Amino acid sequence: MKTEIKEDKYEELMELAKRRGFFWQSFEIYGGVSGFYDLGPLGTLMKRNIIDLWLKYFVLRHMDLATIVETPVINPAKVFEASGHLESFTDPIVRCDKCGGIFRADKLIEEKLKIRAEGKKPEELTQIIKGNNLRCPSCGGPLGEVRTFNLLFKTTIGPYEGNTGYLRPETAQGMFISFKRVHTVMRNRLPLGIAQIGRVARNEISPRQGMIRLREFTIAEMEFFFDPEKPGQPPFERISGGIKSKLNILRAEDRLKGVEKPSQYTIEEAIEEGIVVSPWMAYWMAVSRDFVKELGLSEEETFFEEKLPEERAHYATQTFDQLVKVSRWGWVEVSGHAYRGDYDLSRHQKYSGQDLTVFRRYEKPIKKKLKKVRINKAIIGRELGSDAVKVISALRAMSPEEVEKLLETPEEFIEIEGHRIPKDAVKVVVQEEVVHGEKVIPHVVEPSFGVERLVFVALDKAYTKEGDRVVLRLPPKIAPIKVAVFPLVTNDEEIVRIAREIYERFLEAGIAALYDTSGAIGRRYYRADEIGVPYAITVDHKSKEDHTVTIRYRDTREQVRIPIGDVIPWITEKVR
Amino acid sequence: MKTEIKEDKYEELMELAKRRGFFWQSFEIYGGVSGFYDLGPLGTLMKRNIIDLWLKYFVLRHMDLATIVETPVINPAKVFEASGHLESFTDPIVRCDKCGGIFRADKLIEEKLKIRAEGKKPEELTQIIKGNNLRCPSCGGPLGEVRTFNLLFKTTIGPYEGNTGYLRPETAQGMFISFKRVHTVMRNRLPLGIAQIGRVARNEISPRQGMIRLREFTIAEMEFFFDPEKPGQPPFERISGGIKSKLNILRAEDRLKGVEKPSQYTIEEAIEEGIVVSPWMAYWMAVSRDFVKELGLSEEETFFEEKLPEERAHYATQTFDQLVKVSRWGWVEVSGHAYRGDYDLSRHQKYSGQDLTVFRRYEKPIKKKLKKVRINKAIIGRELGSDAVKVISALRAMSPEEVEKLLETPEEFIEIEGHRIPKDAVKVVVQEEVVHGEKVIPHVVEPSFGVERLVFVALDKAYTKEGDRVVLRLPPKIAPIKVAVFPLVTNDEEIVRIAREIYERFLEAGIAALYDTSGAIGRRYYRADEIGVPYAITVDHKSKEDHTVTIRYRDTREQVRIPIGDVIPWITEKVR
Repeated sequence: MKTEIKEDKYEELMELAKRRGFFWQSFEIYGGVSGFYDLGPLGTLMKRNIIDLWLKYFVLRHMDLATIVETPVINPAKVFEASGHLESFTDPIVRCDKCGGIFRADKLIEEKLKIRAEGKKPEELTQIIKGNNLRCPSCGGPLGEVRTFNLLFKTTIGPYEGNTGYLRPETAQGMFISFKRVHTVMRNRLPLGIAQIGRVARNEISPRQGMIRLREFTIAEMEFFFDPEKPGQPPFERISGGIKSKLNILRAEDRLKGVEKPSQYTIEEAIEEGIVVSPWMAYWMAVSRDFVKELGLSEEETFFEEKLPEERAHYATQTFDQLVKVSRWGWVEVSGHAYRGDYDLSRHQKYSGQDLTVFRRYEKPIKKKLKKVRINKAIIGRELGSDAVKVISALRAMSPEEVEKLLETPEEFIEIEGHRIPKDAVKVVVQEEVVHGEKVIPHVVEPSFGVERLVFVALDKAYTKEGDRVVLRLPPKIAPIKVAVFPLVTNDEEIVRIAREIYERFLEAGIAALYDTSGAIGRRYYRADEIGVPYAITVDHKSKEDHTVTIRYRDTREQVRIPIGDVIPWITEKVR
Repeated sequence: MKTEIKEDKYEELMELAKRRGFFWQSFEIYGGVSGFYDLGPLGTLMKRNIIDLWLKYFVLRHMDLATIVETPVINPAKVFEASGHLESFTDPIVRCDKCGGIFRADKLIEEKLKIRAEGKKPEELTQIIKGNNLRCPSCGGPLGEVRTFNLLFKTTIGPYEGNTGYLRPETAQGMFISFKRVHTVMRNRLPLGIAQIGRVARNEISPRQGMIRLREFTIAEMEFFFDPEKPGQPPFERISGGIKSKLNILRAEDRLKGVEKPSQYTIEEAIEEGIVVSPWMAYWMAVSRDFVKELGLSEEETFFEEKLPEERAHYATQTFDQLVKVSRWGWVEVSGHAYRGDYDLSRHQKYSGQDLTVFRRYEKPIKKKLKKVRINKAIIGRELGSDAVKVISALRAMSPEEVEKLLETPEEFIEIEGHRIPKDAVKVVVQEEVVHGEKVIPHVVEPSFGVERLVFVALDKAYTKEGDRVVLRLPPKIAPIKVAVFPLVTNDEEIVRIAREIYERFLEAGIAALYDTSGAIGRRYYRADEIGVPYAITVDHKSKEDHTVTIRYRDTREQVRIPIGDVIPWITEKVR
């Protein structure tokens, strides 16, 4: 899709964000560090509201299916060895031989040569750079060999050197590692979603996209575990419009054909036609669609783009990004939906040596013919004496298939742990047994959101102008300040007293409110509109007589008059 | 105070926490890493509730005084050079020459010799170790020299080596660095509290106290900035009992006399008698007292212990710890209250070269006699030619007092930037000027809470037994699950349908609820009591006829019968 770039709007929004306190670059007094942003008073409150909504959509409304945990940011190296991040969570970089500047090789190539370079190997990228004689974008010097740079922030845990730890780049590993524990706590429920909202860190090479690419940010994500053979039925009735409602999807195969516009599929179609590989993936995409609407975006302003194989993370077999269009950056990802299969649990099972399977109980026990290894201990004992124990336990650790293979040789002996034992000491027999179930590694689909992006996207959408006036049309649920209270004039003690009392009642009720007495009432409305306060209460001369106040709607400027006693419940109902 | 150790209770609580899903040691499948804990489903929800309460007490109820921000966990080295943490945030460690084990030297001495060692220098600790022939507690080997170990987790930001960053050990520096920006956003309001709730990391030597000493945890803290000369009046009417209410305080001077029991002072006394050095410090201590009561602790179970100079952090001139008694660990700190003065802002002003002062406007402009430096440029120009510019700007950078000092010498020349200039080229004159105000660096008091400790403390307090039954008497506001819904029997479709419908209504309303059909109703009550669910709704045969249900109170086992339609508002009112 073509990207409309509205430079002015972006710059105006960034200026507003800084001036009124949504966000700004961190470490300002030390010159700033790229990839780090502070959330100011308004940004922090707004982010909390968005997180509360996410929690409601993904966890509280789904407490029969899902729960939430909190795990550490710092992880021992083993975790990311197992997860594959130490090997695969890398970007290709290239260093200028002259000035020492370091650049992302694929981005450099894409920018200079307008060709796709994502997912290419370092050697290929080096060849492209050499072949096209690309030079350092800073000083024009020659560029070296492309190598990979791991994006994990590295540290040391405790006082002993060598105890390497890394900051997590996603919260997901916390849910995989604790899966068995949580599964037990939840009384072996499956399917089971385990959500987490928390900080992550990615050591980006040179992030330059404001709130869109941060080195440290908050992820809200869920690992949804299910039995691939018996996934269960998602509760489609909980999503807006149910299973017949539509998802905007741009498929990978269409992208390869040059299609740029998404198509609409009902959820049912998307599942039945295999466009989305799992009903649960489709379900959480639909929940994500509903959730993103709460940020003020219409369904037409967002779609799901299926990633190409080279665009997917190492753990995923199918991925959709939910995209939203913003000023300056065009279409950006607000959520990722990955089919992680059994990749992560299998890897952690292998690296930890722990059993991470769940037990799939059959509806009825079944009789199964099973191969079993029979060991004649008497023969082995006689042959090997005190070494027999070792050999027997080695045999026990082998599968029937492995033992069969050993027995296939023409020799009369088999060799175990350096000892020869006669073949008649070991047999593989087929035996009928009653089996109650089997062990399976659950599969996982993951919806994952970057929360700071959601703040940015909602602000970008809400930012509108009426002439010179800025009105931030934030949905009341996510607006950082819910209500403004103004005394019409400040030289009337009674009016001021009433206004202040109403304000204090909001404080007491825990509803974020602002009180402003400075300047003409029009200027005060303007200041409140600019930060998205959806309702403004004004106490005027009439308030003294009939105990009513006016409430002005930000978006329509309509005013209604209501009794002072009704103010708190009126606002509460609108903003919750 | 004497510490009662109830080993059994602690172990029972830890077992419950793990089995039912409050918390457990992280990275379990990899053998665990000390100092890291996961919060499970119940712990995470409970922590959220505690944070919401904190936010209400410290920010939402005080929006006329305070606000909140969110700043990065990873900071460039400069921040902790300025803050003093690189120099001072250390523990003394000693290494065994034989086995290589590393131990906290002061704790080792305190344990073995029963003497106080906190705050002593490494050389002193080495002497004590050698003098008393202390050996390695693991292998009995000889111990080396004591050295300091910095507790900041270290990392590198970006792809260039040498760009050192550290994980913050407190959120506070984020508020100091962004103070000027936030102060401007808040329209130069003073006093101004800037709160933050976020992750911090401390690379403890060998943490072994469960949830009490973590390497990574969440802090909820506020830096409250005020003009030390015009601090303003805290709104004492907002705290429970007002300014006449009491604080339990154990003063440092009493501790030195061997006193172990705190005394009661009204807030007014504490301020007037200088027991607490700032009214704002006393105010936030009172808010903290009120807040901690919400966790289920009575006022008698908590007190403020003034720290001795050697126990205070490097930035503090007075500190109180709010202590709470828990099983196993005795009195533990749940909040720290530090008078940080202008230490942090002054340091950041120095290290950043930015002006971090605020302008204290006088009520009326005043006339002031000010010393001014007068420079006769003609003379300097004549004497120095092209070097004059440099010398003049050097003179301009000097204060009148500095110039006066130079002029005091007997010589006829003064030396500036290696040039001699005649004394009559520079004069210090006294001049009357109208002054509207002056620049001041605000002072800061800081209330700071460790959130995971609050979770632990609240659980420890709530844990009670009635015979073999565990009842977790958590206050409804912080209980992770607010309500349980049970069909009395599961073989009656209508009863099950009604129960399920009530449960789904709770999900829809975003109220954390559980639904349980497993086993006899008594067992279900038991399971709910054990995790602190304050209310249990049972749908029975009567429900089918008159559309009512019973609600059972966890603590009293009292039951009331209410119409099904009233269930949601009834529970909502009790738990919010």
